[in-house]
Amino acid sequence: MTTSDLMARRDHLLGEGAPIFYERPVNIVRGEGVWLYDDSGKRYLDMYNNVPCVGHCHPRVVQAMHNQAQTLNVHSRYLNEGVLDYAERLADLHADPLTSVVFTCTGTEANEVALGIARAVTGGRGFICSDSAYHGNSAEVGKFTRVGQQNEQDKAREIRAFPFPQRYRSLQDHASEGELTELYLAEVETAINRLRADGIPLAGMLVCSIFANEGLPSIPGEFMPRAAEIVRDAGGLFIADEVQAGFCRTGTWWGYDATGFVPDIVTMGKPMGNGMPVAAAAASSEMVDEFRRNMRYFNTFAASPLQAAAGMAVIDVIEDEALAGNVDQVGNYLRGELCKIQAGCEPMADVRGHGLFIGMEWVKDRASKTPDAEGANTVVNRLRDKGFLIGSAGPMGNILKIRPPLVFKREHADLFLTAFEESVRQTQTA
Amino acid sequence: MTTSDLMARRDHLLGEGAPIFYERPVNIVRGEGVWLYDDSGKRYLDMYNNVPCVGHCHPRVVQAMHNQAQTLNVHSRYLNEGVLDYAERLADLHADPLTSVVFTCTGTEANEVALGIARAVTGGRGFICSDSAYHGNSAEVGKFTRVGQQNEQDKAREIRAFPFPQRYRSLQDHASEGELTELYLAEVETAINRLRADGIPLAGMLVCSIFANEGLPSIPGEFMPRAAEIVRDAGGLFIADEVQAGFCRTGTWWGYDATGFVPDIVTMGKPMGNGMPVAAAAASSEMVDEFRRNMRYFNTFAASPLQAAAGMAVIDVIEDEALAGNVDQVGNYLRGELCKIQAGCEPMADVRGHGLFIGMEWVKDRASKTPDAEGANTVVNRLRDKGFLIGSAGPMGNILKIRPPLVFKREHADLFLTAFEESVRQTQTA
Repeated sequence: MTTSDLMARRDHLLGEGAPIFYERPVNIVRGEGVWLYDDSGKRYLDMYNNVPCVGHCHPRVVQAMHNQAQTLNVHSRYLNEGVLDYAERLADLHADPLTSVVFTCTGTEANEVALGIARAVTGGRGFICSDSAYHGNSAEVGKFTRVGQQNEQDKAREIRAFPFPQRYRSLQDHASEGELTELYLAEVETAINRLRADGIPLAGMLVCSIFANEGLPSIPGEFMPRAAEIVRDAGGLFIADEVQAGFCRTGTWWGYDATGFVPDIVTMGKPMGNGMPVAAAAASSEMVDEFRRNMRYFNTFAASPLQAAAGMAVIDVIEDEALAGNVDQVGNYLRGELCKIQAGCEPMADVRGHGLFIGMEWVKDRASKTPDAEGANTVVNRLRDKGFLIGSAGPMGNILKIRPPLVFKREHADLFLTAFEESVRQTQTA
Repeated sequence: MTTSDLMARRDHLLGEGAPIFYERPVNIVRGEGVWLYDDSGKRYLDMYNNVPCVGHCHPRVVQAMHNQAQTLNVHSRYLNEGVLDYAERLADLHADPLTSVVFTCTGTEANEVALGIARAVTGGRGFICSDSAYHGNSAEVGKFTRVGQQNEQDKAREIRAFPFPQRYRSLQDHASEGELTELYLAEVETAINRLRADGIPLAGMLVCSIFANEGLPSIPGEFMPRAAEIVRDAGGLFIADEVQAGFCRTGTWWGYDATGFVPDIVTMGKPMGNGMPVAAAAASSEMVDEFRRNMRYFNTFAASPLQAAAGMAVIDVIEDEALAGNVDQVGNYLRGELCKIQAGCEPMADVRGHGLFIGMEWVKDRASKTPDAEGANTVVNRLRDKGFLIGSAGPMGNILKIRPPLVFKREHADLFLTAFEESVRQTQTA
C-alpha cells in the first residue's frame, strides 16, 4: 500500500487529524535498539522516542513481559508480591519522602491521581502551572494545557499559570541570574495570590521538573527549590511531573535531581515500561493513605503483575547497562558538538537541555529572536529524509527536540552530527 | 511471607485502603484458563474476572503479544498497518454507524473521549446517567459516579441522574412491563428537562448497555431503544459503555445487541486485550473527525502495535473457539440451575443477567425486599474458602456477581453449583 493510500485508510479509521509526524509520514514495521525500520527496509536513527528508553524491543524487557504474561496477569485486588517488589524498588529510587506508589496506566492518569492526593491532603482546590504546560489529555488534566489552545475562563478558574522560568526569552533583558530567579518567583507568588483573591484555597503546583514541553529552558538557578518553598509556605504541595524527565533521561534518575529540589508528589510514565502502558504517582505513605481515604481509586489494568514485570526489567537494564552514565557522557558530547555547529549557524540561537534531552531554539535572526517554526520544521523533515527522526516542540513550535533512547551512543551522535550539518547547510543555501 | 505480613507491606507501599477482595485476601501467583492458583498451590475457580476473557494466559494471546513486543512497539504518530487492521476489525464487529475508533489505554480514558466526541458533535455540555452509575476514575468521568459516594452539587451540575430501569425494585409495584417502560422513560425526560431548565444544552446520555454496576437489572422492554430516541430528539447522542458488556459477555458481541438498541458512540475496555491495557471509543467517521478538529487528542501508549496485536488475538480466539455460543449455552444452563436453587433459598430473591454475567439479589426476606449486603458478603467469603471466586455489586452491595472468563464450561458450572448449594445451606443453618 502506498503512503497516501495508508493515510486515507488511517483518516477514515482513526479520524482526520489523528496526530502524525513528518510531511512524508514513515511506515514503521520494526524496531531494534536505537533503530527503526520502514516497510522498504530503510533504517532511521531514532532520536525522538523516550518511551522505549532502554532501546526498541530490548530482549530482557521483552522476555520479562513474556514470562509474566505466560504466568499471571490480573488486577490488583488480590495479593501479589511482584507488584509490591516493584513499588518498593521504585520508591527506593526516589528521594526519602516518597515511599508509596499509586499505579495507573498513563501519565495523564498519574497526574489525575497526583491532583487528587494534593487536594485530599491540603483540602485545597487550586493549582498553579506554567503558561506553556501540557500534562495530559483528560478533561481535568487538560485544564493545565496552555500550549496550542485557549482555555475557556470558566474551565480554568482553579488553575492559574505563571510564565515558565527561562534565560533565553527571559522576563527582563540583561538581568543577572539572581535577578531572574527573583522575577520568576514573584510570578509564582502572583499566581498563588490570584487564586487566594478569588477565594480558591491552594492545593499545589504541578510542573515538569525540567519544563520539557516548554522547550527545556535553562532555568535560573535556585528557582525550583525556592518555588517549592513558596508553594509549601502557601499551604500547597509541589508535584513534579517526571513523565518525560524521569528514568535517567537527564543523566540522573530524576529530573528533580538535575534541577535541584525534592517534590512532595511525583508522577511517572512514558519510559517506565519501555512501551508497556504503566505509570504511577508517588508520595509519602501518609499522603497516599489520605488519598485512599478520600477516593475509592481503582484502575483495572494498573498495579498488575505484567506492569510490574516490565517496569522491573526496565530498572534492571538501566542499572546493569549503566545507562545514567551513558546519558551523561553522550549527552554532554552531543551538546558540545552542537554548540560548535551553532557558532556558524545563525538560526540555531540556543542549545540547551539535560542529558539526552536537547532543545535548540530556531530563530529568524539572533538579534530579534523571532521564532522560526517553519525553519525548524524544514530541518526536521530534511533529517527524516536522511534517516534521522527528531521532532519540534515548545510553545511556538520552533524548538528542535532531540530525545533518543538512553542506549544512544557516541557513534550514533556522530552519524547524526554529520547529517545535521548537511541539513543546516542545505537550509542555509536553499 | 504470611498474609498479614503481605497486607502490612501492601498498606505501606500502595496505601491503606487500596481495594482488595475477601476477608482473607488471596495471594495469587499463577493463572490458566478459568483457574487461579495461590502461593500454596490451592486452585480457585475464577468466576469474577472479565478482563482475561479468553482465559488467563491464553497461549495465542500471549504468543501474539510476544511476537509483537519482539518486533515493534511504538506510539501512533508513525504509520502502522497493524493498528489500522485492528481498528477495521473492531469497527466491522459493530453496528453500521460505528466506523471509526479512537484508542486509549483504559475504559476511563475511553469514556473521556466519548464525552469529548459528544460535546464536539452536539455543541452541548450536559449529560444524563443512571443514579447508580460508575464509568471510571478520572475527575471528569468520576462526576458520573453515583455508587457509594455523594457528589458535590457544583461538581455535578452538568450531569443529571435518572433512576435506572429495573423490574425487581421498580418505581411502581404491580406495574405492567409497558407501564414500567413509560415510567422510566418519563424519568429520562425529567433529567433532560432539568438540564434544559438550567440552561445547559444536552450533549448526551452515558449508560452501560446492561447496567452492570447497577446490578444487572431486568430492563423493562423497549426502554433502551426508546431512551435513545428521546435523547436524540433532545439533540444529544447516546453513548453505550461496553467496557463490561462488550466482547461476547452477554452471548452476543455487544451488550447493545442484548438490550436492543444501536448507540451513537460506544466505549470498550476491560476484556479487549485479555489483560493488556487497551480501550477505545468508536463512533461514525464524521463524529470522530469532528472530535479530532476540536481536540488535539494524543495518548502515548494507545493505538500501539502491541495493543493491536493483543486485541486482534482476542478477537481471533473468541471467533475460533466459538465463545459467543459457549457463553449463551453455559450462561443459560447456570442461570437455570440457580433458579432451581432459588426455589428453596429465601434470601436469593432475584436471579438475572445476560450470558455469563449473572446477578442475584440477596435479601433479608422476600416480602420486604430488604437488601442483605452482609449475607451476600458471607456467601462470597464462604465460596472463596471453598475455592470459588465471585464478587458482590450493586448500589447496596447485596447483589452476588458472577462473571467468569468466557471459556467457562458446563463442568465448571457444575463444580460451582455444588459449592454454592453447600454455602447457602451453611448460611441458612448458621
